[in-house]
Amino acid sequence: MLPEWIFQPCPAISESHRDAAELRQSQLTKPTGALGRLEQVAIDLAGLQHRDRPGADNAAVIVFAADHGIAAKGVSAYPQEVTVAMMANFAGGGAAISVLARQLGTSLEVVDVGTLASSDMAGVVSDKCCRGTRDFSEEPAMTAEETAFALSAGQRAVMRAVAGKVDILILGEMGIGNTTSSAAIGASLLGLAASQLVGSGSGMDARGRARKARLIDTAQARHGIGPDATPAHILCALGGLEIAAICGAIIAAAQLRIPLLIDGFIVSAAALMATRLNPSCRPYLLASHQSAEQGHRQMLQAMDLRPLLSLDLRLGEGSGAAVALPLVRLACALHNDMATFAEAAVPDRDDG
Amino acid sequence: MLPEWIFQPCPAISESHRDAAELRQSQLTKPTGALGRLEQVAIDLAGLQHRDRPGADNAAVIVFAADHGIAAKGVSAYPQEVTVAMMANFAGGGAAISVLARQLGTSLEVVDVGTLASSDMAGVVSDKCCRGTRDFSEEPAMTAEETAFALSAGQRAVMRAVAGKVDILILGEMGIGNTTSSAAIGASLLGLAASQLVGSGSGMDARGRARKARLIDTAQARHGIGPDATPAHILCALGGLEIAAICGAIIAAAQLRIPLLIDGFIVSAAALMATRLNPSCRPYLLASHQSAEQGHRQMLQAMDLRPLLSLDLRLGEGSGAAVALPLVRLACALHNDMATFAEAAVPDRDDG
Repeated sequence: MLPEWIFQPCPAISESHRDAAELRQSQLTKPTGALGRLEQVAIDLAGLQHRDRPGADNAAVIVFAADHGIAAKGVSAYPQEVTVAMMANFAGGGAAISVLARQLGTSLEVVDVGTLASSDMAGVVSDKCCRGTRDFSEEPAMTAEETAFALSAGQRAVMRAVAGKVDILILGEMGIGNTTSSAAIGASLLGLAASQLVGSGSGMDARGRARKARLIDTAQARHGIGPDATPAHILCALGGLEIAAICGAIIAAAQLRIPLLIDGFIVSAAALMATRLNPSCRPYLLASHQSAEQGHRQMLQAMDLRPLLSLDLRLGEGSGAAVALPLVRLACALHNDMATFAEAAVPDRDDG
Repeated sequence: MLPEWIFQPCPAISESHRDAAELRQSQLTKPTGALGRLEQVAIDLAGLQHRDRPGADNAAVIVFAADHGIAAKGVSAYPQEVTVAMMANFAGGGAAISVLARQLGTSLEVVDVGTLASSDMAGVVSDKCCRGTRDFSEEPAMTAEETAFALSAGQRAVMRAVAGKVDILILGEMGIGNTTSSAAIGASLLGLAASQLVGSGSGMDARGRARKARLIDTAQARHGIGPDATPAHILCALGGLEIAAICGAIIAAAQLRIPLLIDGFIVSAAALMATRLNPSCRPYLLASHQSAEQGHRQMLQAMDLRPLLSLDLRLGEGSGAAVALPLVRLACALHNDMATFAEAAVPDRDDG
């Protein structure tokens, strides 16, 4: 039902590069462990990239946008037109992710994988088979064909990105209503109550959150999503197109041995789906930040991912991952450029 | 006893710039609050810098090095020669802070304010009145004159740094034994037991930590450091020269309206001392990271500072503050460069 490539295994990490990186960390002019989590980031990247000197200078950002039928149920504080308006803002350079991409010197591609936009938009790649999903509280959000198309749209975007040199990939999203789809996917994959995953999204109050949770409960019953539901069934039933595209992009990148810096709630829901469809992609995921969105913590824990940052971010767009990128870059620079005790003729510890 | 300039008030923050920045944050194309703590960083900097568009592009790093008599008591896992060897490594470009300064495009000045080095060293500014402190477990670490000299060495370093344009300042340190001095200062200023502040430094085990705590208890008794001890008495009695220099640099920078990104345990001890000597410097302090060193949390809480990062760093040198600098820069870029809802013609929220 889903495209065959989704299930192809991702390459193994290089244990030898990982071990060499760990040894090097113990020789640099600092107490071992004194650079804390930055040491592990460099070691992990060395293993994933099969390099002695890991890097994150060449980073690419891809933002996928799509609309959601569930928005008709009033699950967002913002009107649905915001999806397309923000897509224009990404391309126009005024959105948070646009500013971050400029500051960080990364590429930024904006892909419309299913917004309501009826015409092409400057600076946006259109790669969609439909305009928006169906309302998942009433019918399946996507057909199998639409899901397959969106997954492969994610793969196509990764292929465009790797035409250049890419050390690390950041995926972002825009879609009014997509925290509701993401919470529904998370609850379904983790077997948790919807109320445990539903947060305030872009600004819902307690009543709005309760309504989101009820919609998800109803939808799970309607679509027969129980403990035995397959990831593919859950994805088709609940949407959305950008979530499927991100899921496809994650698997495609991991198959090409490109590490991914995972953003917040929605990208993490897509990542959780990706690891259920193809567990071999898991080692390629690095968690960037702990979002302020309730439910993000459960998803990260389920993937055994520990975020680098916790800044109460809840914007999406890939912005949290972009904010964490400098830490990954500095981790690599420290690993690659610091002197060893021998090189700097610094005495090592008395018991060393 | 201490130099008069230490007690001169630091300028007030600009409420009007702060308020304008807060208003702007609510107009940018994102849900208000969605950029989490990055929003407050930009708002705070706008108020401190008296600017509509805050900035951290022009950052300066100053690392102060000195030796500690207490090192004779075996409080460090490293031999005392490491202080001077690492000072050469800073200047030579191989240390963590050297790599970070290069990556971040900041200046880096290394100042010897009291190491055991007996001759000048290439790339190091020598500004010292003595070589190392006395062993504070046996006698006062510094005389009043030595303390005054070191405080003013900090001020002189700030004056050299501000000869260029400086948006924000990072201070670092090197000195074998200085976590013991810092723990002693923290315990004395906060009225806590030494055992609550003492950590493993560059690699002490539980027995070593217990010895550090006992040395501090003994010293406090010997120097008559009780609840009524003045900050100046505590600083002279416990040292060290680089801690005094950082304390002076913090106050001097704040008097010049330059915000400071505060590093880990040792710089925080100096900052705590600075806020006790001159409370008006407090608004200029931004906490960069929560160190893995036990006791750092208490110091930050006492100053009501909330760190941006928590990455288990425990290296010192100013490295944790340097790692946080990109977050401050991105916070400013987002604040300054994002489009408003009006500019981007994005519909605001339904209830807005």
